[in-house]
Amino acid sequence: MSVVEVRTAPAYGVVIERGILVGLGERVRGVSSAAKTLVVTDSNVAELYLDTAVAALEAQGFEATSFVLEAGEKSKNPQTYLNIIDDLAKNGFKRTDAIVALGGGVVGDVAGFAAATYMRGVDLIQVPTTLLAMIDSSIGGKTGVDLPLGKNLLGAFYQPKLVVADIEVLSSLPACEWKNGVGEGVKYACLAGGEIAEILKRGLNESNLERFVYLCASYKADIVARDEKESGLRMLLNLGHTLGHALEKQSGFTMPHGVAVACGIERMAFAARTRRQLSVEDHEAIRAMLVKYSLTCAADINDEILAYVAMDKKSQGKEHISIVEISGIGDCRINKMTYDEFEDYIMTKQGV
Amino acid sequence: MSVVEVRTAPAYGVVIERGILVGLGERVRGVSSAAKTLVVTDSNVAELYLDTAVAALEAQGFEATSFVLEAGEKSKNPQTYLNIIDDLAKNGFKRTDAIVALGGGVVGDVAGFAAATYMRGVDLIQVPTTLLAMIDSSIGGKTGVDLPLGKNLLGAFYQPKLVVADIEVLSSLPACEWKNGVGEGVKYACLAGGEIAEILKRGLNESNLERFVYLCASYKADIVARDEKESGLRMLLNLGHTLGHALEKQSGFTMPHGVAVACGIERMAFAARTRRQLSVEDHEAIRAMLVKYSLTCAADINDEILAYVAMDKKSQGKEHISIVEISGIGDCRINKMTYDEFEDYIMTKQGV
Repeated sequence: MSVVEVRTAPAYGVVIERGILVGLGERVRGVSSAAKTLVVTDSNVAELYLDTAVAALEAQGFEATSFVLEAGEKSKNPQTYLNIIDDLAKNGFKRTDAIVALGGGVVGDVAGFAAATYMRGVDLIQVPTTLLAMIDSSIGGKTGVDLPLGKNLLGAFYQPKLVVADIEVLSSLPACEWKNGVGEGVKYACLAGGEIAEILKRGLNESNLERFVYLCASYKADIVARDEKESGLRMLLNLGHTLGHALEKQSGFTMPHGVAVACGIERMAFAARTRRQLSVEDHEAIRAMLVKYSLTCAADINDEILAYVAMDKKSQGKEHISIVEISGIGDCRINKMTYDEFEDYIMTKQGV
Repeated sequence: MSVVEVRTAPAYGVVIERGILVGLGERVRGVSSAAKTLVVTDSNVAELYLDTAVAALEAQGFEATSFVLEAGEKSKNPQTYLNIIDDLAKNGFKRTDAIVALGGGVVGDVAGFAAATYMRGVDLIQVPTTLLAMIDSSIGGKTGVDLPLGKNLLGAFYQPKLVVADIEVLSSLPACEWKNGVGEGVKYACLAGGEIAEILKRGLNESNLERFVYLCASYKADIVARDEKESGLRMLLNLGHTLGHALEKQSGFTMPHGVAVACGIERMAFAARTRRQLSVEDHEAIRAMLVKYSLTCAADINDEILAYVAMDKKSQGKEHISIVEISGIGDCRINKMTYDEFEDYIMTKQGV
């Protein structure tokens, strides 16, 4: 078992262990005085793990009901959110009760937002079931739903009371979800370097998976504790996201988030190398990681993609874009530039 | 001018002054780097003060648009909230922009919830235009909307960046809204005693109104700073609210909140006197205040009212009700009792 402490105010733990789902009840009992728990999950996860989770909660005397949303990003909307709230109200949930988010990023975001706002906030326990959720979205308190005009336009910063990551459940993860998570993993490899990068270079496998989740979660926990509301340092976690978001949009959100981020990283690494900010050796190492996990980018960074970046910038009314530049594996930095400077940065061909 | 500092994290000010609305732009400029501001108000307030507020913001270079909701508690629902969010998104508001809540409790609650959750939180400036909002609802960060199953079931604790209370706007306050505010004022008189009680005994008028708002706001600010999320001490502010809520419900929410609270206080004071917890002198003084402002209660505390209290208790799944008992003017305390004990407490006739 590994435990990461997230030092927000108040602090909470990320408990990582194989087979811990059957002990969920004890874990929740340790952090919440809830009588009732609503397990929010999606149609895919429900088939596999909902019964186990509910039984584990009931074994500890919790009254456990469930809310199953349709799997997929489309469910991350205000109506699903209001349906969860309605369910809580109809079942007489009070301020001291709890929500358990059992699933990937979509479930965590929607259930988290419901927990943040039902009766001005009830206990939230994140039980991530995807690699991406374990190393990224379940930690740090970002919750929200999408609007037709943009992703995560409605949401709150709301830290969970606990994150319970059962490595065992990753054995049922579909290949596309696996790639999705490793894409964000490459981000941590570039940001933190060290053992995270070593594991990805050698190959992620059963024997080092728990350690990998622990290291990524620790890195994220440290950043979040130092900048909970993303006013500065936390922007580092957006490495690869400027182009990544544009690629997701262009694909009509059929390209998985982590895969789009990996594309963004590939291009940022290339730009840094051509400008001699990044060594040939580190650039090759990043490329090798992307090749190893079939995350190299088929998408061409063309005018259409850049138009999406420009649109993003315009809709946010910003003068500058905050870009995360890669100066080495384990050496990234935030740099503000105008949109024109960014276009120049990313489209440059000199020196190669 | 008087300024109350609310020492939450981060702290903010409540600025109280006659005619300060025309200087709203400078005040907002002092606390926010917003480019765009959305003034949320209701149909009554819009006619009187919206143009002044918008002009004051524009004079300081803010881009100021407005959202006018229909006056009344009925507007405090999820749809109004989502409409405001939609308006923000369509107008390209970003995380650094701001919402100005210009109005009474309903406007403050709905606009505050929108500010708490649009892009995970934008700057909020409360500009209360009723006595009740100035001394109570605009301070302390409670935001929310009602659901069919209950009031404020959806909401967040979200502190404003600033509260701007222009005493001058109270000159246009309808008589019923005035009573509504004084009802909550009697609550502060019972809780704090001293000068607040003296002013209400002598008579609230033009010459002491600013001072009265300042004193009530100071009292609330102190309590909120010591218990922001209402885990203990802040429950003192619920004096008169257990019966008050029941009376509001029974009336189908036609009885104004402050008037219902005054009824609750009257009954709690009577119960305390019959049990010799409260002196005859203080009880008479509380009665005299209620008589002076036509806030004595026509409603009979009968089985129907108590059934509403019981229903409240049941829906919250609570074993105990937290009651605020009046032991003297300026001497109230929180006491937990079962529903049966409460019924016994409030229905007792002995000793009179």
